[in-house]
Amino acid sequence: MQKNPLERLPEYLKKISSELDRCVEFWLKYSHDEINGGFFTCLGKDGSIYDHTKYGWLQGRQVWTYARLYNSVDRFQTPDILKAAIKGAEFLYEHIKNKNTKKCAFAVTETGEAIKYQRTIFTECFYVLGMSEVFKASNIELYKQEATEMMSTIVHWLKEDDSTLGTLALKVNKSISSLANPMMLMCLIDQMRNTIPEIVQIYEKLEVECCLEILGHVQRNNSVVLENVSSDFKELSGSEGRLMNPGHAIEAGWFLLQHAALKKDNSLKNTALEIFLKLTFSQGWDDENGGIFYFLDADGLSPTQLEWNMKLWWPHCETMIAFLLAYKQTSDLQFLEIFERVFDYTMKHFCDPEYGEIFGYLNQEGKINMNFKGGPFKGCFHVPRSLMMCEKMLTQILDQKNKN
Amino acid sequence: MQKNPLERLPEYLKKISSELDRCVEFWLKYSHDEINGGFFTCLGKDGSIYDHTKYGWLQGRQVWTYARLYNSVDRFQTPDILKAAIKGAEFLYEHIKNKNTKKCAFAVTETGEAIKYQRTIFTECFYVLGMSEVFKASNIELYKQEATEMMSTIVHWLKEDDSTLGTLALKVNKSISSLANPMMLMCLIDQMRNTIPEIVQIYEKLEVECCLEILGHVQRNNSVVLENVSSDFKELSGSEGRLMNPGHAIEAGWFLLQHAALKKDNSLKNTALEIFLKLTFSQGWDDENGGIFYFLDADGLSPTQLEWNMKLWWPHCETMIAFLLAYKQTSDLQFLEIFERVFDYTMKHFCDPEYGEIFGYLNQEGKINMNFKGGPFKGCFHVPRSLMMCEKMLTQILDQKNKN
Repeated sequence: MQKNPLERLPEYLKKISSELDRCVEFWLKYSHDEINGGFFTCLGKDGSIYDHTKYGWLQGRQVWTYARLYNSVDRFQTPDILKAAIKGAEFLYEHIKNKNTKKCAFAVTETGEAIKYQRTIFTECFYVLGMSEVFKASNIELYKQEATEMMSTIVHWLKEDDSTLGTLALKVNKSISSLANPMMLMCLIDQMRNTIPEIVQIYEKLEVECCLEILGHVQRNNSVVLENVSSDFKELSGSEGRLMNPGHAIEAGWFLLQHAALKKDNSLKNTALEIFLKLTFSQGWDDENGGIFYFLDADGLSPTQLEWNMKLWWPHCETMIAFLLAYKQTSDLQFLEIFERVFDYTMKHFCDPEYGEIFGYLNQEGKINMNFKGGPFKGCFHVPRSLMMCEKMLTQILDQKNKN
Repeated sequence: MQKNPLERLPEYLKKISSELDRCVEFWLKYSHDEINGGFFTCLGKDGSIYDHTKYGWLQGRQVWTYARLYNSVDRFQTPDILKAAIKGAEFLYEHIKNKNTKKCAFAVTETGEAIKYQRTIFTECFYVLGMSEVFKASNIELYKQEATEMMSTIVHWLKEDDSTLGTLALKVNKSISSLANPMMLMCLIDQMRNTIPEIVQIYEKLEVECCLEILGHVQRNNSVVLENVSSDFKELSGSEGRLMNPGHAIEAGWFLLQHAALKKDNSLKNTALEIFLKLTFSQGWDDENGGIFYFLDADGLSPTQLEWNMKLWWPHCETMIAFLLAYKQTSDLQFLEIFERVFDYTMKHFCDPEYGEIFGYLNQEGKINMNFKGGPFKGCFHVPRSLMMCEKMLTQILDQKNKN
């Protein structure tokens, strides 16, 4: 007989806390470059470095993770964690941001020379994420200034004029709404609220717009969340238009749930729960093998992304956050049951009992497809963010239950 | 008892000719846009269009394929094939090339508005490929002019000054040799030799350099062909440096074999046979499941490309060309045996007995991973090129045998 999911809450909490400890220890132990600063993220199963390239997304995210751990989890409020966050922030400032163009490098060498810039604004966004959180942890004014300035540059590029992005000859007249942009902006504005609250007011109108833009991705009479839509929220033709990224939609779902709670917006809460979470999960879960598909096509065709049927770590991390938050907000057991299903799948297939952190990439059947813990796109971010948020929520849920 | 591979030559020829007919029929029947010109390449198993985007690489390649069929295979020297090639060339000229920047669009809409430009020069290379071959087929002077001018622009960008590529703000000071660039240039120069021979002389020095650059990718004491090396032919650090793309190295191998035959260079021939073909094949073939891996890491680590263990159609097409050419040049049965192994795998796993053309993407175990015949990167090129070249070589081999 299956246990009542409520009975398993202490077991979840225990496992999650222990995985969080192992995860943080892994990055502290193996990823720091004591000579040049910054973080290695190409780390094998056992933490060995297989590539010394430093990735801009992951530098900013690791700074955020350390600083957020310091700011919000008692046992990580230690001088070592703060020092690690600040060392990362120094590398970000010195080597990731190009002081002439304001662009942040997607990849730099071990010693910090730029290898690649992307045309998108994501590295810059993770720069803001890291800088704002480390300002809150350290109270160092420079980081506040950096976060504030880059935030304003990003909004300028996205909403006013992207000519200084420097890709004029590659520019086309095509304006689409990709789910990533409003999600990223919402995340940054909420980040400002928690770290530099005095500037939030500037962005509150934009936050409302981002929220509406995310909702504009709900298509086909509320039956699907699409990754890309036209800028007036119509379905785009072709594979790009039919693309579903279930983990991304579920992540957007918990952003919306948080926002709905802040604004006491029940209609938004309901949309987040019913469409972004429940509906998307039912479409994205692989009933045969378990796990969440990376990409799907809304008409059931083959997506054109070769990795469409792989199971990636981050959609599972985001789904755990989303469904536990949904349960916490509603006390509805159906959300806890899905949290449990995803938790069990994640612990069974992604975890490594031997070393800390989890694997990132499984094939459709759940077999490990690449035997490393970190890479160009997997660093110290989704796993610890999910674990620290789940730890906090489970603690609150259990406290509440004990009071009753 | 296994048949002697020589006995199977007529069987191969018959199957290959029939697959070539089915392939050409498939593209003629399903890919033409009779209203706007150009070719759809996102075609399902049965030829149905699942996306109307037109891809620049694939427009140029399909023009080349039709024109080359017309120019070199008797039964395809028909007014229909010539008309199809010219219609494609008109779309290339009108819609793929940006007449201001000289850049060719990676993707355009159904009616020809640019959707995306890449930072690389590959679309431009396929523009030259298509234009030069269709000039040979049609004798239309404009196409010769287009091929000649774009060829000179590409060489200018690659060898002299890439500032007009228009990506200044994204530029970094990193100079590496990627196998694709010298391969592409060698291919284009050989293409000029066959279509616009009066300009080949300008490029013969460059051709020698390209050949040396390709040979510079042989590393670790002749034990591996690496996809990326430094510009002075040293191994690069990290995953990028250790990256192997066996299908690509084998394709480079047959470019070198052709060049060695032209120049009567026995040492080059030997390197191509021993290293680019035999050694690479032995490393790239999946002994457990059959098929050629997409990417490998020279130290046996996990490549960072999620699709590393998939089996793609094009490495198999290129390997068939390479090993049949090797057999034709040497009469050494070990090459014919590998040709046979790859031929059998390809016919068994990639072929579709129901409709023409072949599937493009299998998982490691050989199961079809995406149920379409064409997509953003798979059009009318590798399959018909391989089939027409193999048909011609098999015919010559059999003729020779009958003479003896």
